[in-house]
Amino acid sequence: MSQTPVLVVHGGAWAIPDDMVEAHLRGVREALATGWRLLERGSTAVDAIEAAICYMEDDDTFDAGRGSFLTRDGSVQLDALMMEGATLRAGGVGCVEHIRNPIRAARLVLEQSPHVYFVGEGAERFAREHGMELCRNEELIIDREVQRLKEFQAKTAAGHPDPTFAGPQFANDTVGAVALDMHGNIAAGTSTGGTLNKAPGRVGDSSLIGCGCYADNQSAACSVTGWGEPIMKLVLAKRAADRVREGRTPEASSNESIIYLKARLNGHGGMILLDRQGRIGVAHNTPRMAWAYKNINDEKSGINC
Amino acid sequence: MSQTPVLVVHGGAWAIPDDMVEAHLRGVREALATGWRLLERGSTAVDAIEAAICYMEDDDTFDAGRGSFLTRDGSVQLDALMMEGATLRAGGVGCVEHIRNPIRAARLVLEQSPHVYFVGEGAERFAREHGMELCRNEELIIDREVQRLKEFQAKTAAGHPDPTFAGPQFANDTVGAVALDMHGNIAAGTSTGGTLNKAPGRVGDSSLIGCGCYADNQSAACSVTGWGEPIMKLVLAKRAADRVREGRTPEASSNESIIYLKARLNGHGGMILLDRQGRIGVAHNTPRMAWAYKNINDEKSGINC
Repeated sequence: MSQTPVLVVHGGAWAIPDDMVEAHLRGVREALATGWRLLERGSTAVDAIEAAICYMEDDDTFDAGRGSFLTRDGSVQLDALMMEGATLRAGGVGCVEHIRNPIRAARLVLEQSPHVYFVGEGAERFAREHGMELCRNEELIIDREVQRLKEFQAKTAAGHPDPTFAGPQFANDTVGAVALDMHGNIAAGTSTGGTLNKAPGRVGDSSLIGCGCYADNQSAACSVTGWGEPIMKLVLAKRAADRVREGRTPEASSNESIIYLKARLNGHGGMILLDRQGRIGVAHNTPRMAWAYKNINDEKSGINC
Repeated sequence: MSQTPVLVVHGGAWAIPDDMVEAHLRGVREALATGWRLLERGSTAVDAIEAAICYMEDDDTFDAGRGSFLTRDGSVQLDALMMEGATLRAGGVGCVEHIRNPIRAARLVLEQSPHVYFVGEGAERFAREHGMELCRNEELIIDREVQRLKEFQAKTAAGHPDPTFAGPQFANDTVGAVALDMHGNIAAGTSTGGTLNKAPGRVGDSSLIGCGCYADNQSAACSVTGWGEPIMKLVLAKRAADRVREGRTPEASSNESIIYLKARLNGHGGMILLDRQGRIGVAHNTPRMAWAYKNINDEKSGINC
C-alpha cells in the first residue's frame, strides 16, 4: 500500500498576541517541514510526529519543552503522549522535570515498554534506562517565563489576575501533530508544559490517552489543545475520533467536538483531526490557533481557521 | 426528585484462588454495606463510593491501599479516580506513595481543585494542604506482599514467571464502585495498587479518566478492573458509558465492552456499569470477579457473574 502522506501540526489555541503571531507561524511551518521531510521519504507517521513535535519543544515560542510556562514554584513540569493508529500502541510521560524532549520519551514508552504511561521520577528513570540523557530543570527555564510568572503572581496577589492566564481563555501553547504515512497508518502526538502558575503535580489533558491525544486506524488521529480540565472530562480526542468512525468527516467532527466542548462545559480549545483517507479537520473556539498542513499537492498554515 | 438508590462494588477480576474467595466475598459485601448505610439515608453517590472504596483500601485482601502489590523496587504506588455524573467533576491521584486512602485524596481533588489530576509528590502535597495526613510507605506494605514479590522475582530470574502475575490473566485486585443516589445522580470511583513488580512510575487505567473510571448522568457510571494497558488503549469506561447513552442497556453494554476488549486487543478484565434508571451491568472475561450489588429490594454478590 502506498498512501499519499499528510501532516498537520498545531502550536496551541488561545488569544495569541499580535507580536507573537509571526513566531508561532514560523514555528509551526518549520515543524511541518521537519516532519514532512521524513514522511515524503517513506518514514512512519510516528517518526514524523516525533520530529515535528521535537522541533516545537525546542522552539522557545511554545509551551512545550524549553520555554514552557512555570509552575507555582517556578519549575517546569512537562507532559507528552504519542499513539500509533495501526496497533493502538501508546506511550506517555507525565510531570517530568528533567527531560528536554518529552515526546521522545513518550515514543520510547510506546515502543519499548509493556506499559503505556509513566509519571514523575519513574518516567525519568525509564527514559534514562532507555538511553535518554536527562537535563537539569534550569535548562528548561527561560527569562521570559520567570518574568511572566512574577508578573502573574504579583497581579494575582494584588487582586487583578491577568485573564489571559487565569480565565477560561488562558494562554495554552501546547503543541501537537497528526500524520498519515505512505504505509497508510495514522498517528498522533501532543506535548505541553501545562498552564502558567499550575500547582506542582497537576497533569492536564495532553498526556492522557483519549483526552489530549488519540489515534486509531479504524477512526482517526487527534491532538487537542486548550483549557485541559473540560477536555479531560469529555475525553475529547477519543470522542472526535469516534465520530469519524461513525461516518462524519474529520472537518465536521472537529467542529462538532469544539462546539460540544463549549456547550457542555464552557470549555475553550482547538483540535486537529486526520483520518486514513487523508481528510483533515482543524477547529478551535479560541481567538487564535497556530496550525500548519501539508500533503503532496498543497501546503497551508494559519493563525485562524 | 427521590430516586431509589443503587450501589455496585467490585474487588478485582482475575483468577482469584479458591483460598482467597471467601475473603474477597466478605470484603465486597462489607464495602457494599458501608456505602449503603450512607446512600439509604440520603447521602450522595460520591459519599457512598468514597466509603465503600475506603473500606476496600483498608482491607488487606485487595490490591488498593494497604496490602497492595509491590513495585519492582518493593514500594507501594497507588492510583485512584472519582467522577461525579451530575457535573462531570472528577478528581484523581496517580503514583502516590504516602496516602493511606487515595480515594479520599481523589475526592478532595474533585471538590477542592480546579484541576482534575495530580501525580506523585504534587498529589501528596495537595492532599496534605487539604487536611490529609500522610503516612510512611512502609505502613502500606504487608509481609504477604514482600514474600510475593520475592517469589515472583526469583521465579522470573530462574526463567519461570508465574503466569498469574505475568500473563495476560495476571492478578488484579483493583477495587471500584458505582452508585445512584436519592437525588438521581450517579458517580464512579476506582482505586488500585497496580500490578505486581511494576516499573516505578507506571500508571495504569484506574486513575485515568475514561479508562478505568467514568461517570456522566447523560450516559452511565463505570468502574473497570483488569490488565490496564489494553483498557487504556480502548478508553474502555467511557466507551461502555457511551453505548448506554446510545440506547443499550448497561447489561448489554458491559458485556459488549468486555467482548470488544478481548477481540480488539486480547485484553482481560471486568467492569461494573450503572445508569440513572438504576439498571446495572456486571461483566468480566477473567476466571473470577468479586462483586456485590444492592438496591432497596435486592442484594446480591458473587465471585462470578
